[in-house]
Amino acid sequence: MRAIKIGLFGYGCVGQGLYQTINNSKNFEGEIVKICVKDRNKKRSLPTNLFTFNKEEILEDPSIDVIVELIDNAEAALEIVTTALKNGKSVVTANKKMVAENLEYLIDLQQKTGKAILYEGAVCGSIPIIRTLEEYFGHEPINEIKGIFNGSTNYILTKIFQEKMDYDQALEQAKEKGFAESDPTLDVKGFDPKYKLSILLTHAFGINVSPDKITNLGIDHLQSSDLEFAHKHGYGIKLIAQAIRKNDEVFACVLPQFIKADHNLRNVNNEFNAVTLNGEFCDDQLFIGKGAGSLPTGAAVLSDISALSYDYKYEYKKHYNQGKVHFNNDSEVTVYASFQKPEDIDLNEFEQVSDKYFCFDRSYVIGKIKLSKLLRSKWVYNSKISVIQFDQSDEFSNELDLKTLETEILELRKGQKLREKISV
Amino acid sequence: MRAIKIGLFGYGCVGQGLYQTINNSKNFEGEIVKICVKDRNKKRSLPTNLFTFNKEEILEDPSIDVIVELIDNAEAALEIVTTALKNGKSVVTANKKMVAENLEYLIDLQQKTGKAILYEGAVCGSIPIIRTLEEYFGHEPINEIKGIFNGSTNYILTKIFQEKMDYDQALEQAKEKGFAESDPTLDVKGFDPKYKLSILLTHAFGINVSPDKITNLGIDHLQSSDLEFAHKHGYGIKLIAQAIRKNDEVFACVLPQFIKADHNLRNVNNEFNAVTLNGEFCDDQLFIGKGAGSLPTGAAVLSDISALSYDYKYEYKKHYNQGKVHFNNDSEVTVYASFQKPEDIDLNEFEQVSDKYFCFDRSYVIGKIKLSKLLRSKWVYNSKISVIQFDQSDEFSNELDLKTLETEILELRKGQKLREKISV
Repeated sequence: MRAIKIGLFGYGCVGQGLYQTINNSKNFEGEIVKICVKDRNKKRSLPTNLFTFNKEEILEDPSIDVIVELIDNAEAALEIVTTALKNGKSVVTANKKMVAENLEYLIDLQQKTGKAILYEGAVCGSIPIIRTLEEYFGHEPINEIKGIFNGSTNYILTKIFQEKMDYDQALEQAKEKGFAESDPTLDVKGFDPKYKLSILLTHAFGINVSPDKITNLGIDHLQSSDLEFAHKHGYGIKLIAQAIRKNDEVFACVLPQFIKADHNLRNVNNEFNAVTLNGEFCDDQLFIGKGAGSLPTGAAVLSDISALSYDYKYEYKKHYNQGKVHFNNDSEVTVYASFQKPEDIDLNEFEQVSDKYFCFDRSYVIGKIKLSKLLRSKWVYNSKISVIQFDQSDEFSNELDLKTLETEILELRKGQKLREKISV
Repeated sequence: MRAIKIGLFGYGCVGQGLYQTINNSKNFEGEIVKICVKDRNKKRSLPTNLFTFNKEEILEDPSIDVIVELIDNAEAALEIVTTALKNGKSVVTANKKMVAENLEYLIDLQQKTGKAILYEGAVCGSIPIIRTLEEYFGHEPINEIKGIFNGSTNYILTKIFQEKMDYDQALEQAKEKGFAESDPTLDVKGFDPKYKLSILLTHAFGINVSPDKITNLGIDHLQSSDLEFAHKHGYGIKLIAQAIRKNDEVFACVLPQFIKADHNLRNVNNEFNAVTLNGEFCDDQLFIGKGAGSLPTGAAVLSDISALSYDYKYEYKKHYNQGKVHFNNDSEVTVYASFQKPEDIDLNEFEQVSDKYFCFDRSYVIGKIKLSKLLRSKWVYNSKISVIQFDQSDEFSNELDLKTLETEILELRKGQKLREKISV
């Protein structure tokens, strides 16, 4: 096995982590021979001759075997990856957005060029979930995959719940520690875990689902009254990505979720990620590891580079033989939706409402709603509305009459019922 | 890729699980063409012509690609595996004793024959720990590996602690469910997890350590007074396998251990196994999955068979480049040792004693002892002595004077001190 020559794009948090893991690793035969960066003025700790600002210097260099793409911009990343594969180079990337939005195309391109693209570092940092799904569960029908896929929001939620920090301060800290993406809205609005979930749908169930078809809500609408509700009922709140198969139908979403004290995801804190998996043969599996940070993600990238040394490729067995399994967004989830102004919420979009609490400063309803409605409804994305899912095992058998509720809401709008309540 | 033809040895719990997983798997191209069994009189659910009692019928059949060895007897298993590799067949086995006791030889044999032997099913059932160590952490220095490696003792401890079942009843139930090995002493005395630990030492640290050099104590000496001690101090008890590297030295052992309420292994119950891992880059990782049972282990075996279809082999990178890392059994562990008769215990073997409780029906001391002493001392293996380790993070700063203790022990033997105590 000869030493692998690596051309690296991007030298941010993960790029530097990769450089460090390669330097401190054992038995790895390879080196980074050139790094392409954008900013000509930034000071860097490595010798200047290692850097270039011209991507062709890497992409057209026949001595370079592997391209490692660790830049932020998904469009530019796709261009680099496409050229690399077409130029006969294998690729390792940690760009979840680029992979999720172009997976069908990338699978096709791999088949055409015969070259591999690996992206373990794109999903849950140090947890080897893609390769485990590919190799270990390649023949096993998966029933469910669920977890905490975003380190920065999990860090923020931990600080809010355990240290009573406020949201902005916690977000600032996550940024400082390098856990948050350069654009934190991708994290806090649940896009980042959605990209990861979309990638796992291919490896777990064989279905390619464009991220824009998957419902995602984040943690940026959470109100202190929501935290109080959680505390009062013994819940924590985690941002949960999940995909559940029932027969041939898979539903998937990313939503904040109330988590009971004895749930195995409850104590997954800070920048740790977790993936739970239920398979037909293995039953329940749980993987926990750091989902963000320079070294953990760098190590995941290194493990992909290493796999290329024995020509490893994802086989996409389930993708090529998915059979009847397909994505269905019409499943119902039970959610808590809190609001200040009753006109901000549209109760008619709920299939059923089982509980409500109306009060002057903040009200909520609990009810069943279809994922497809959550995806399309405008009121859900109003920053004054917060929507939190209940675990499927939580039961709400109550069924309130929607007409009565509407009358109450009308009264609430007029402020009548409210005053009554408060005076009591 | 052509369909794999499998010759199977053994049709017990795991063999039947393998048959079932192959029949219910997706996209697996392969079939079991012959099964070699020992018992001519046992009734079996499959057609008679699938079975043979003559091992040559499988080992000498050129149309068979892969031998799957799932029998109990380690000596016979080694013979089968050796012949298979020499005959140019790849092998999958779940026989932890055979692999652990012959790993050096088996690595050598693989290199000589060019054929592979895979044994994921031998270690922690459904948890893909060997392949993860090989492929994902192949370049990463591992600091620690620790966990619950035996499903049947974990099942027994769960029943004892959660359902107040007695030991014999819990053992009987574990046997009925197919979690216990045919000879349960391998489980309850900690040999089974020791074999697994010994195998992981090779894959995590690159060192081959013969199982007989590793200290193992089981759960069969546990007394009700030990359970009371645990309850009183908020501990659970788990049978823990662990290997910890400090610079170039690795120590390893299997001991029952007191586990605090917030420890991530505390809620791993029933037949579930868990592996925690600390690496220099990834930091902490935790894997949880079913460690025993027909389907979970069958699925692990199937994943190995599947890996053979693309000529996968363990690379043993760390074994071939272990450098200065070596096994050292002179590390000290802090243990609780309980006894009825003071003459049963040898206090002089302790490096230091930090706590003691002497009473008529059952006494204990807490102190530091070298693993090498635990391995060699006879008193430790007396069924009336139970030894339980404390987690390394538990601190015992107290230091009792050994001479005073000896005098007290002498008095205890005479029954004087005791009566005093009881009369108080």
